[in-house]
Amino acid sequence: MNVAINKDFINALSDCIREQNSKSVLEMLAELHPADIAEIFAELSVEEQSFILSLLDNEISADVFLELEEDDRKRLLKQFSTKEIAEELINEMDTDDAADIISELSEAQQDEVIAQIEDKEHAQDIVDLLRYDEDTAGGLMRKEFVKVNTNWTVLTAVREMRRQAEDLEEVYSIYVVDDDNILLGTLSLKKLLTTSSSTKLEEVYNKNVYYVKADDEDENVAKIIQKYDLMEIPVVDELKRLLGIITVDDIIDVMRDEAEEDYQLAAGITRNVDADDSILTLTKARLPWLLIGMFGGVGAAGIMSNIQDKLGDFLILLSFVPLIQSTAGNVGIQSSAIVVQGLANGTIKDDVWKLIGKEFLLGLLNGLGIALVVLMISHFIFGTSYLISLTICLALVTVIIVAATIGTFIPLFLNKRGMDPAVSTGPFITTSNDIFGVFIYFLIAKIILGF
Amino acid sequence: MNVAINKDFINALSDCIREQNSKSVLEMLAELHPADIAEIFAELSVEEQSFILSLLDNEISADVFLELEEDDRKRLLKQFSTKEIAEELINEMDTDDAADIISELSEAQQDEVIAQIEDKEHAQDIVDLLRYDEDTAGGLMRKEFVKVNTNWTVLTAVREMRRQAEDLEEVYSIYVVDDDNILLGTLSLKKLLTTSSSTKLEEVYNKNVYYVKADDEDENVAKIIQKYDLMEIPVVDELKRLLGIITVDDIIDVMRDEAEEDYQLAAGITRNVDADDSILTLTKARLPWLLIGMFGGVGAAGIMSNIQDKLGDFLILLSFVPLIQSTAGNVGIQSSAIVVQGLANGTIKDDVWKLIGKEFLLGLLNGLGIALVVLMISHFIFGTSYLISLTICLALVTVIIVAATIGTFIPLFLNKRGMDPAVSTGPFITTSNDIFGVFIYFLIAKIILGF
Repeated sequence: MNVAINKDFINALSDCIREQNSKSVLEMLAELHPADIAEIFAELSVEEQSFILSLLDNEISADVFLELEEDDRKRLLKQFSTKEIAEELINEMDTDDAADIISELSEAQQDEVIAQIEDKEHAQDIVDLLRYDEDTAGGLMRKEFVKVNTNWTVLTAVREMRRQAEDLEEVYSIYVVDDDNILLGTLSLKKLLTTSSSTKLEEVYNKNVYYVKADDEDENVAKIIQKYDLMEIPVVDELKRLLGIITVDDIIDVMRDEAEEDYQLAAGITRNVDADDSILTLTKARLPWLLIGMFGGVGAAGIMSNIQDKLGDFLILLSFVPLIQSTAGNVGIQSSAIVVQGLANGTIKDDVWKLIGKEFLLGLLNGLGIALVVLMISHFIFGTSYLISLTICLALVTVIIVAATIGTFIPLFLNKRGMDPAVSTGPFITTSNDIFGVFIYFLIAKIILGF
Repeated sequence: MNVAINKDFINALSDCIREQNSKSVLEMLAELHPADIAEIFAELSVEEQSFILSLLDNEISADVFLELEEDDRKRLLKQFSTKEIAEELINEMDTDDAADIISELSEAQQDEVIAQIEDKEHAQDIVDLLRYDEDTAGGLMRKEFVKVNTNWTVLTAVREMRRQAEDLEEVYSIYVVDDDNILLGTLSLKKLLTTSSSTKLEEVYNKNVYYVKADDEDENVAKIIQKYDLMEIPVVDELKRLLGIITVDDIIDVMRDEAEEDYQLAAGITRNVDADDSILTLTKARLPWLLIGMFGGVGAAGIMSNIQDKLGDFLILLSFVPLIQSTAGNVGIQSSAIVVQGLANGTIKDDVWKLIGKEFLLGLLNGLGIALVVLMISHFIFGTSYLISLTICLALVTVIIVAATIGTFIPLFLNKRGMDPAVSTGPFITTSNDIFGVFIYFLIAKIILGF
């Protein structure tokens, strides 16, 4: 299973496509996973992509479709009629994937596609799933799973499982329900294989089952799956009736998206973008934070230019502003990043004040260390006077403590208010600390030096 | 399965422990998953933890142990003799977990523990696993899996599976090998349940199997599992002989660690720390970047204080340094974050120069936008002269372009050199951009204003 996908391979494939050599194209792709084919698609034109899809089995085409980036998929979908979408793609997909693809279409197209799905049960399941928000358990779940009644014997269960599993790619768990479809527990295939045929299911199934409600947030589902090392988790309604299941591979995608979002917020990027997005998309995601940063900088410049009458020592003070500012920014980001991560992975519990107190102490220690180094440099290398050196050092310690405290407090506050604490990392913290920093600096200078 | 773990629960539990009321303690914990018990441990003293472990089944104790944070685990392990570690903990663990725990002990303890493991086959498997680096496929794999010979019938395979699976918690895939233990493919339990007993395995097993080599990096294993939506992946040696398997839950931990590390590097934290680590640990992780930031700031101050002879206009210029600096820092972090993420999720391929070119263009657009706003503010609100306003704007555009280009180039360069590109986000970029920014600013001022 290790075909090298390199430039030579792509070029050879393009050549075959240009020659309309269907046989060679199919041979080249035969060994590849749909995820690999989707990767190759990134290097091909829409026409070449369409040609390949027309050759592949519907089932593989559908899988390739699912592996594409959303933008590429939309571009390619325009080449298909709603009838083709329904018959060649949606028919072959699991309900959760089908619902995701359909939700990317326009309202009018959605109705047309759904009306043309041949298997009416499949269509009904998809319509059911379309009701749920994309970022809830309902939006992630699929309708493909094996369900058995607690009153059946192992023999009946195996027979039923064979029937229900016919369309399923893979089965890991079997869900046990009562006559009212209330979820009771699970039965592993291993158990089914190792228990005698006449045993009643109620005697052997596992009653300790973790489940989520359809309107639970996807982030919470991810936390539960991670915490308890689950391969899949059932989704129930308010009455605990079994609605569907979520598998770990879909959760991995949720985790990855979330990690990327947090990371980008930390770096001052407001939307989930990739390096290969358009310049316009990238600008939209990046300009807002830059503007905030700019207003912070202009604000600091305003503060500084208002005190232009005293020169000399003041000029020396001024030359240390960048130092004060970048230190405040760095400390603030560090503190907030630790808190945001602690909230995300659950290491931060209730003790908010203890945390802020600790951050205060940490700021004091770091501040004293840095101030000492700066004192040496400014006094012995730059030859700054004692009073000015003292001012700079006192300001540094204060600024670091304040920045650390603000950096800790803001994400905790946002989290308490039900907002995403990750927003508070990056430029937001940097900028507010810039302004606080310059303000504190000149305040201390005023007290010590009388400016 | 939804017991509320809150302060009241913890207090009640502590009371029962103080009264040495074993029965109540066991009742309170009966419904809980080991991961929940580990969460409760964070609120208890080592003595309370030991008391609970002495009551629990060895199997559950072992699971609780695995769910603890490494520091807590080490503290608790000191309460155990090597004999207890071997008999009560290691005996109950899967080989991969057992190897992880043993590798946390001192050399001398390791030998003592291994010598006291009763099941010699288990001990041998663990010793095998200890040979591999922690961050390779070998370091992640376990020896617990079901293996069948391609020449067997389905009936034999089911019988063998029952025998081999006796000690396994769960089985998802069965691995098919030839007489030399060379991996040929997989067989799903579903297939085993839905195929007639007399069929030979070689007719039904799935030959398309993804595998990794024992010395592959854990990050690569994570990529493959994610890309192909796998639940587990077999690990082979150079001759493709089957050594073990890696399951998706272990990979989720790798992914989470990696995301956290990237995130912390972006925020200027050099080691993987949590909010509840000690102040000393946190200081060690945070001070290095702060010092780098400080030297950057001092460098900028040095540049500024060297040009102290011309005042007036110069003071106005000086007051815009924070703006130039924070803009350069923000742009640099944004660019590098996008590249680091693109490298991690594979959206960045070979086209390095195209990427840098795009970043250059993007910097030009963003720069012009921001410069325009600053021009308005500085000229109409602050009343800055045309020439100085022009200097500031030109410097802004140049600095943004340079910062964007550097922010793109550095992670790409590090990646090419085989180093972790995530190191380049955060303070490293900010600081180098600070210095470049101030330098460019005064260079342009020198050209336009003649300083």
